[in-house]
Amino acid sequence: MGEVLIKKDTMTIEDLAKQVEELKKRVEAIKPGAEERVSIIVFSGELDKVLAAFIIATGATAMGMEAVMFFTFWGTPVLRDPKKRVNGKDLMGKMFGFMLPKGRNAIKLSKMNMAGMGTAMMKSLMKKKNVASLDEMLEMAAELGVKIYVCEMSMSLMGFKREELIDYPNLEYVGVATFLEQAKNSKVQLFI
Amino acid sequence: MGEVLIKKDTMTIEDLAKQVEELKKRVEAIKPGAEERVSIIVFSGELDKVLAAFIIATGATAMGMEAVMFFTFWGTPVLRDPKKRVNGKDLMGKMFGFMLPKGRNAIKLSKMNMAGMGTAMMKSLMKKKNVASLDEMLEMAAELGVKIYVCEMSMSLMGFKREELIDYPNLEYVGVATFLEQAKNSKVQLFI
Amino acid sequence: MGEVLIKKDTMTIEDLAKQVEELKKRVEAIKPGAEERVSIIVFSGELDKVLAAFIIATGATAMGMEAVMFFTFWGTPVLRDPKKRVNGKDLMGKMFGFMLPKGRNAIKLSKMNMAGMGTAMMKSLMKKKNVASLDEMLEMAAELGVKIYVCEMSMSLMGFKREELIDYPNLEYVGVATFLEQAKNSKVQLFI
Repeated sequence: MGEVLIKKDTMTIEDLAKQVEELKKRVEAIKPGAEERVSIIVFSGELDKVLAAFIIATGATAMGMEAVMFFTFWGTPVLRDPKKRVNGKDLMGKMFGFMLPKGRNAIKLSKMNMAGMGTAMMKSLMKKKNVASLDEMLEMAAELGVKIYVCEMSMSLMGFKREELIDYPNLEYVGVATFLEQAKNSKVQLFI
Repeated sequence: MGEVLIKKDTMTIEDLAKQVEELKKRVEAIKPGAEERVSIIVFSGELDKVLAAFIIATGATAMGMEAVMFFTFWGTPVLRDPKKRVNGKDLMGKMFGFMLPKGRNAIKLSKMNMAGMGTAMMKSLMKKKNVASLDEMLEMAAELGVKIYVCEMSMSLMGFKREELIDYPNLEYVGVATFLEQAKNSKVQLFI
Repeated sequence: MGEVLIKKDTMTIEDLAKQVEELKKRVEAIKPGAEERVSIIVFSGELDKVLAAFIIATGATAMGMEAVMFFTFWGTPVLRDPKKRVNGKDLMGKMFGFMLPKGRNAIKLSKMNMAGMGTAMMKSLMKKKNVASLDEMLEMAAELGVKIYVCEMSMSLMGFKREELIDYPNLEYVGVATFLEQAKNSKVQLFI
């Protein structure tokens, strides 16, 4: 039977083997698609933008995606724990420590802050409308497994010590290369 | 003839079938590449940034890509229609309605606004240099099929009602999940 | 032997050929993954954000990726060479030329500028902590082959002439379409 098929068909095993070989090469040449992951650079550190970053990150994990948040520059002080005290900072470190917000409850809106009134208004409004506060967001993020990367260079530049940052289950100190390695294979990357 | 080939060749149909099976698995494991789509989060709501968002969105559609703009936070008031009046807002809604810009012609530059002078200067300059105004951009976007998503949470937070937003053919009210669903399969995602 | 195999096996060459045909179609339908490239829109033009853009771009090239930076709106004046003089500008061009920063050493932090004190403090701190300055970043970017695209529309809008921009080996004047063409096939896109 096989012989008959081969005869009436012009296709031989050799032909087929060649086609399979060719297909293999084509499949090997296919650039891999990205992972189901959202990678967010949290640069600005203002209340509205940090909230947006957390809403996207937790939203993504709720959809079954991974989420990585890279806190850098003005985003770094958002992760300070106001209850933690550290000693042994140099003058610059002390100055930055004093001038930069002491954690997520000290940051302001990027617009309409109006000497704090706008920020307070927004917070009370969020409560009324059942929008999660930054505290709740962070808790949710921890539970959902959102990864927090802290930029080592920013820590050094601003004179922050690891002991003054919040306790968070999935927090790592990394350089930009580690973040980029994650980001480049993510489906979504955002600079916020 | 077939038999001869099989004999002189070390490759049998079984071997080949195995290879094809393996190839199938590899093809199945390939993560799909992204769609020809640009997904933009319009967060900041300043004239220059909103213009940039529309230039990218319309530029993308002109290249044959899809474009989705997700208006959220300060981007939401940009879509207000200054000619539309609504009643029945609570106090907070009235306050926000009063403080936030009434539509795209009331927004300012993020820099060099200089009490409105910089913004006016930029607008007159754009006219002179044949750069489309925001009004023209919006018209173009509608014609080119740019989709506008409005963030439901922002609408609720700022007390906006759907009746006070502009008429636009492709406007939908969505949550962050719907946007992320589009964004994650897009070739380009931007947070503006 | 081949014949025997064909007989005892239910798989015929025809069956196999069909499967290979099907596989080919599936492979053809696979959307290609993105290139190893980072595409950054440098929109804001503030010292901290421009630094972040260069850190990411040079970091990406150090990892073996390509990097393209598209300087537009407030990002454009960052590329002015303060030592170059041009004539023949119209009134608007002269005004913009006067008001916008004259190159990368004239830009300020987006926050905590404090009449220039914060910016100066950050610069001295960067030196102390061995973080590359913008001058060094630009040199490094040139060496690593980071491409700089300058937005033609912004040049025209701000009345800049090509003769007043810095000398950079990989600098091109392009429209948004050229940038999008690169960005859409990049693994990472950011709006900074």
